[in-house]
Amino acid sequence: MLQTPELIIFVHIKIHSMPRPLIFITNDDGVEARGLKAVIEVARRFGRVMVIAPETTQSGMSHAITMYSPLSLRKVEQSDDLTIYACSGTPVDCVKMGYDYLFSDERPALNISGINHGSNSAINVLYSGTMGAAIEASFYGSPSIGFSLDDHSSGADFEASAIFAEKLIGDILGARIDEPLCLNVNIPACRPEQIRGHKICRQNKGYWKEEFFCRQDPRGKDYFWLTGSFFNSEPDATDTDEWAISNGYISIVPIQVDMTNYRQIEAMRKIIDN
Amino acid sequence: MLQTPELIIFVHIKIHSMPRPLIFITNDDGVEARGLKAVIEVARRFGRVMVIAPETTQSGMSHAITMYSPLSLRKVEQSDDLTIYACSGTPVDCVKMGYDYLFSDERPALNISGINHGSNSAINVLYSGTMGAAIEASFYGSPSIGFSLDDHSSGADFEASAIFAEKLIGDILGARIDEPLCLNVNIPACRPEQIRGHKICRQNKGYWKEEFFCRQDPRGKDYFWLTGSFFNSEPDATDTDEWAISNGYISIVPIQVDMTNYRQIEAMRKIIDN
Repeated sequence: MLQTPELIIFVHIKIHSMPRPLIFITNDDGVEARGLKAVIEVARRFGRVMVIAPETTQSGMSHAITMYSPLSLRKVEQSDDLTIYACSGTPVDCVKMGYDYLFSDERPALNISGINHGSNSAINVLYSGTMGAAIEASFYGSPSIGFSLDDHSSGADFEASAIFAEKLIGDILGARIDEPLCLNVNIPACRPEQIRGHKICRQNKGYWKEEFFCRQDPRGKDYFWLTGSFFNSEPDATDTDEWAISNGYISIVPIQVDMTNYRQIEAMRKIIDN
Repeated sequence: MLQTPELIIFVHIKIHSMPRPLIFITNDDGVEARGLKAVIEVARRFGRVMVIAPETTQSGMSHAITMYSPLSLRKVEQSDDLTIYACSGTPVDCVKMGYDYLFSDERPALNISGINHGSNSAINVLYSGTMGAAIEASFYGSPSIGFSLDDHSSGADFEASAIFAEKLIGDILGARIDEPLCLNVNIPACRPEQIRGHKICRQNKGYWKEEFFCRQDPRGKDYFWLTGSFFNSEPDATDTDEWAISNGYISIVPIQVDMTNYRQIEAMRKIIDN
């Protein structure tokens, strides 16, 4: 059936008057990071995008907030479907500035943090500014996804990450999710055709063994650079995020924020309640 | 039986040659904080004390680490049973400098963080530098306790905290604990005789509602102070830390660091594995 011009105009108006979902994006590598630009490009296919990202790198800032100095906010870019702000604070400050200052009554349908330059699998979820922001954003009610690519290099290839981000954003926006959701997603450093798939898994139990590089300043005073390497204490456990990304899979860990160790409550009662 | 002088001398030498346990202490309020001095005084009754505390306040620094600037370390005090260092970094940096740089083969028998000026109950465990350090220290194998007093004022009374710290340190040093242990201990702001007891409990599910105070600098540019108030979403749940300290009890929550939300893994498989 051929459509009359009136019907075409009506359908056109109808589609354009449907508000496209608002998607909030932040990161910890700062407003100029390539990983941020990569995920903005993907998110714009699904809705209007509001970015509040740190002015400078905030890697390793975890869930830190700025308590003893004020914050500044700078509008970097504004168009019909994309607004970008830079904030002087931490990734968690960026989330709070969005939800508790900038946003009007309309709340984002989805929160994204990343794409981080470097993996945030295993215990890195605790140190990571990317995941600090993703977790914080989930407190405000909408689903939240932290994306991290296992590549710190300046030439990191975000193509596989962007392809999976498109799939996952579609899945989450299309699903009915009734409880707080925060996903820690880590992507192996490889070309899209080398990705073997994705695995929904648990956090690996490994930890960092640090080393401090000692140097002397021009006046002979010691200073120290924190460095270290990750020790995977369960390399054969195939249900962990660390195993997944080491074996060519994208890892997805659902994150919770109740840090109570329920198993230890009874043991503690025996030791302390006396 | 009367002891001969030789036996008295032997017993005296024996007691003094038994190494007293090494106790590691840090905090997030900085090396000069009154809460730190209060817990050092208690810990010295049990063993030799090594303190590595931040040079300045690091409240709200969570599990942050210093990745892009070097750290300095300054010896503040040294005596037979007490050594105090100040570190330019975060509370977690202090822990890592202790375990991965300063300590010799002898590892502390116990880690303490605090006593913090301000409560770290409920979701504050995520933002807290005190608890960031306590959690980090527990990764190195010995039990770890974070103490926080629900009083930010400069005249805060640490007596009730010190009395309970003495009991708890004795309990934990005297117990056989086979798995990683980290306790989040919060003390109500009151006199010792007003404390109704202690409760081993779970983390409350409340959250912060922030407000940003906007000010203008002398050149008319806006800047923002983060402030807010805690919303207890389950005020009637008597098994939470928030209920305990609001009702005159000291709260003790055992903390775990596996942030996997196991309950959501199956739901995510249905949404994403397609």
